[in-house]
Amino acid sequence: AESLTALIARFLSLCDYKTEKYIVAKNKKVGVLYRLIQLTIIGYIIGWVFLSKKGYQETDESIQSSVITKLKGVSVTNTSESGVVVWGPEDYVIPPQGEGVLFVVTNFLETPNQQLGYCAESSKVVDGRCRSDADCRGGHTVVAGNGLMSGRCIVSDVNSTGTCEIYGWCPVEKKFKPQRALLANAENFTIYIKNFIQFPKFSFSKSNVLETSDESYLKSCRYDEQIHPYCPIFELGDITRRAGYNFQDMAVYGGSVGIMIDWDCDLDKGYSQCHPQYYFTRLDTTACNRSVAMGFNFRHTRYFKHHTGEIHRSLFKVYGVRFNIMVHGKVGT
Amino acid sequence: AESLTALIARFLSLCDYKTEKYIVAKNKKVGVLYRLIQLTIIGYIIGWVFLSKKGYQETDESIQSSVITKLKGVSVTNTSESGVVVWGPEDYVIPPQGEGVLFVVTNFLETPNQQLGYCAESSKVVDGRCRSDADCRGGHTVVAGNGLMSGRCIVSDVNSTGTCEIYGWCPVEKKFKPQRALLANAENFTIYIKNFIQFPKFSFSKSNVLETSDESYLKSCRYDEQIHPYCPIFELGDITRRAGYNFQDMAVYGGSVGIMIDWDCDLDKGYSQCHPQYYFTRLDTTACNRSVAMGFNFRHTRYFKHHTGEIHRSLFKVYGVRFNIMVHGKVGT
Amino acid sequence: AESLTALIARFLSLCDYKTEKYIVAKNKKVGVLYRLIQLTIIGYIIGWVFLSKKGYQETDESIQSSVITKLKGVSVTNTSESGVVVWGPEDYVIPPQGEGVLFVVTNFLETPNQQLGYCAESSKVVDGRCRSDADCRGGHTVVAGNGLMSGRCIVSDVNSTGTCEIYGWCPVEKKFKPQRALLANAENFTIYIKNFIQFPKFSFSKSNVLETSDESYLKSCRYDEQIHPYCPIFELGDITRRAGYNFQDMAVYGGSVGIMIDWDCDLDKGYSQCHPQYYFTRLDTTACNRSVAMGFNFRHTRYFKHHTGEIHRSLFKVYGVRFNIMVHGKVGT
Repeated sequence: AESLTALIARFLSLCDYKTEKYIVAKNKKVGVLYRLIQLTIIGYIIGWVFLSKKGYQETDESIQSSVITKLKGVSVTNTSESGVVVWGPEDYVIPPQGEGVLFVVTNFLETPNQQLGYCAESSKVVDGRCRSDADCRGGHTVVAGNGLMSGRCIVSDVNSTGTCEIYGWCPVEKKFKPQRALLANAENFTIYIKNFIQFPKFSFSKSNVLETSDESYLKSCRYDEQIHPYCPIFELGDITRRAGYNFQDMAVYGGSVGIMIDWDCDLDKGYSQCHPQYYFTRLDTTACNRSVAMGFNFRHTRYFKHHTGEIHRSLFKVYGVRFNIMVHGKVGT
Repeated sequence: AESLTALIARFLSLCDYKTEKYIVAKNKKVGVLYRLIQLTIIGYIIGWVFLSKKGYQETDESIQSSVITKLKGVSVTNTSESGVVVWGPEDYVIPPQGEGVLFVVTNFLETPNQQLGYCAESSKVVDGRCRSDADCRGGHTVVAGNGLMSGRCIVSDVNSTGTCEIYGWCPVEKKFKPQRALLANAENFTIYIKNFIQFPKFSFSKSNVLETSDESYLKSCRYDEQIHPYCPIFELGDITRRAGYNFQDMAVYGGSVGIMIDWDCDLDKGYSQCHPQYYFTRLDTTACNRSVAMGFNFRHTRYFKHHTGEIHRSLFKVYGVRFNIMVHGKVGT
Repeated sequence: AESLTALIARFLSLCDYKTEKYIVAKNKKVGVLYRLIQLTIIGYIIGWVFLSKKGYQETDESIQSSVITKLKGVSVTNTSESGVVVWGPEDYVIPPQGEGVLFVVTNFLETPNQQLGYCAESSKVVDGRCRSDADCRGGHTVVAGNGLMSGRCIVSDVNSTGTCEIYGWCPVEKKFKPQRALLANAENFTIYIKNFIQFPKFSFSKSNVLETSDESYLKSCRYDEQIHPYCPIFELGDITRRAGYNFQDMAVYGGSVGIMIDWDCDLDKGYSQCHPQYYFTRLDTTACNRSVAMGFNFRHTRYFKHHTGEIHRSLFKVYGVRFNIMVHGKVGT
């Protein structure tokens, strides 16, 4: 019976209210200091976290972005291999479909009229060099080479080394050390970057293109951070300059440039206060070693057919600048 | 000696146990209220954070995704420039390699048989207009034009303005204001979207394709949220309709559509409860100004060689819809 | 007057300092235990959170990355349709421009000399099969077929089913069930992956390429986790092997492989301790059902012009492996 009473007492004690015992010190100096500290903390929370950092804001970083690009500009080249050629955007932009990643040809080497057949491997290819037929294993491909070895070694001069004969697209590409960019005025080509963004959570959408009915503005303007922040047209030379590099230097061997569009918006300030910010950086260098593995080039081909049905092709080695448009953003409200 | 004693006392006092002094108020009303508040907080934590929000779950947002697309459908066009042409996916999908970003041609203008030579600049090009030879600076390119000015001004009629003669790919593209989509039945083309996802952290992988041995299902089904959520085949017209736009309207000038595949999975519920969700949005518009900078087109070329060795080309200006398949996801367990 | 006094008293009480009343228990056992618990908590915070997890570090996950790829290797194929063909990177890498996502042809079927005209639909196309002209709706396109039905049914043998006559690119592609990869030595092709990363917040940039002046190293080395972690050259067969698959098996029908480059760097340890980690996974399979929807192929074309001006084309159905290079990273300091 005693233990039951104890249990009931314990259960009832659950309904007791337990609180700390306080001492009140009626010392005015300590009291004022204590309130000042409290006010400082409250002031910090309201002033910094809420007003300045907007800590109460809900943010959305799931940006949906669409980038469409269009280049304008024409260049004329005159080389012994290709003759006089006029380059429009349909030729120098690869791929041509106006994506956010695009490559602009600034320099090239054409090897026209290649046909399948037998010829000497390029002397650039280390494993294709030979002194006698024994060095050329017939039926094998040359490592990093252009074709299948026939087994013969072609030496122009008894004392020198030659190269293995191959079956492949002949003649092979000649040695080429670019000296200057053939599409010299590529610097003046313009790129029109249309960027549409959406934040589905807040049903917010905006574009980096000025909302104007004046069509001629978008034909003649050039981007300027201060004067024309909503003109989405950039000269290529201007982009590399903003990234800290000279376009002509990059154009010889090629390179890679990043264009970052940053939308950091506070929707409380209204639609018109949400601006795109552009940042430009060169992507294919490191701070420590600027020489390593520089340049950007690749090869592509155009196939033709003789009226006899034989296939021949033009091989293009193109050097140029790759532009990579990246869109980041977050909004808060 | 006294200070040493004090030091020892202080050190020993480190081993004292200091706690707050409590008052127990045996007021039942206050006590019950106090316990109720405690229970509410515990209930909130268990009910909302743990059960509803699964706050205890480990989540992984590092989704690895692979998208493969394939289009089916044929369209026939008949234009004065190109004659009757049959378009298969190998022609109207650019690029053709089945990526997650693809462009479907819905309208086009061909300029066949272009050759390098001299002709009048297009009257579309503002800077190519002239009244006399003095307006055409020989050896310079026309801004946003098609070639290099020869210095001559070609005026058909004494009183009117003409355009500068250029060296470039001639004839230049004519003025073109698309009225209707030439590949009218592009609406009925189907796109097969294969999406494979992996969450490496949980060794979880799944696909949006029904795991069936019935191959004919995947040849005839069409996606439906309710009936066929695992049929990954969509009609293009259906996609734009779900995004809120009419395909024929978009097809004339082109546009850009986003297809979002969302995998939000709770692995506690099992493999079979992890479903892909599809969302469709038009990406190239903003809520405020629907007219600005609409449309999507670009130019590409096909090069040919005469049997005399001369190069000529067909220039295609293609309008169409770009589909951008984006995959998001997170799993929790 | 009394209430005013009360108000003043209340206001003055704001300046009182209120604190909890403490009891000091001079029990040494309880005291030592209490201090031990405190020390454990402090030890955990310093040892685990600060030293091991580096909880004090500021981290940056906004990596900026640029990927450039280049393939080397030559393959020779000999088929009845195409004859002897030599494949270089300019042909088997699609697209050729050295991006982070690339497709390597390992198998193909060429349908040469297609011209617009009338021929029988492929028997592969289910909806193109017919028994009589009534089954072929003239002027309509065949679902998933190759052209526009003329309305005639072409039956080679009275008792068998035939296929509808179509207007399209003729002859249509034949049925093809790949048995083995035609570009058998694609396994030995090498891919050179240049990856440059930047963390703008910390002005940190690095590359996965060895910073050496010995150019021949980067021509002959092969990646090895232990011996050559900074050699960025991989054999394709080696990549699929690391992902757990046999290259020859994947090469027949194609597939998709992910190459993840992970930069997880602690800048406190210095520049030289920040290494790229490579991970390889096959992306087009799921753990549960390995058979579903396997393979990767697409079609592309090469257009030619007869000297009479007629267009004809070669249709290539290419099978291959898509490599998707993904770069992740975070740094802390």
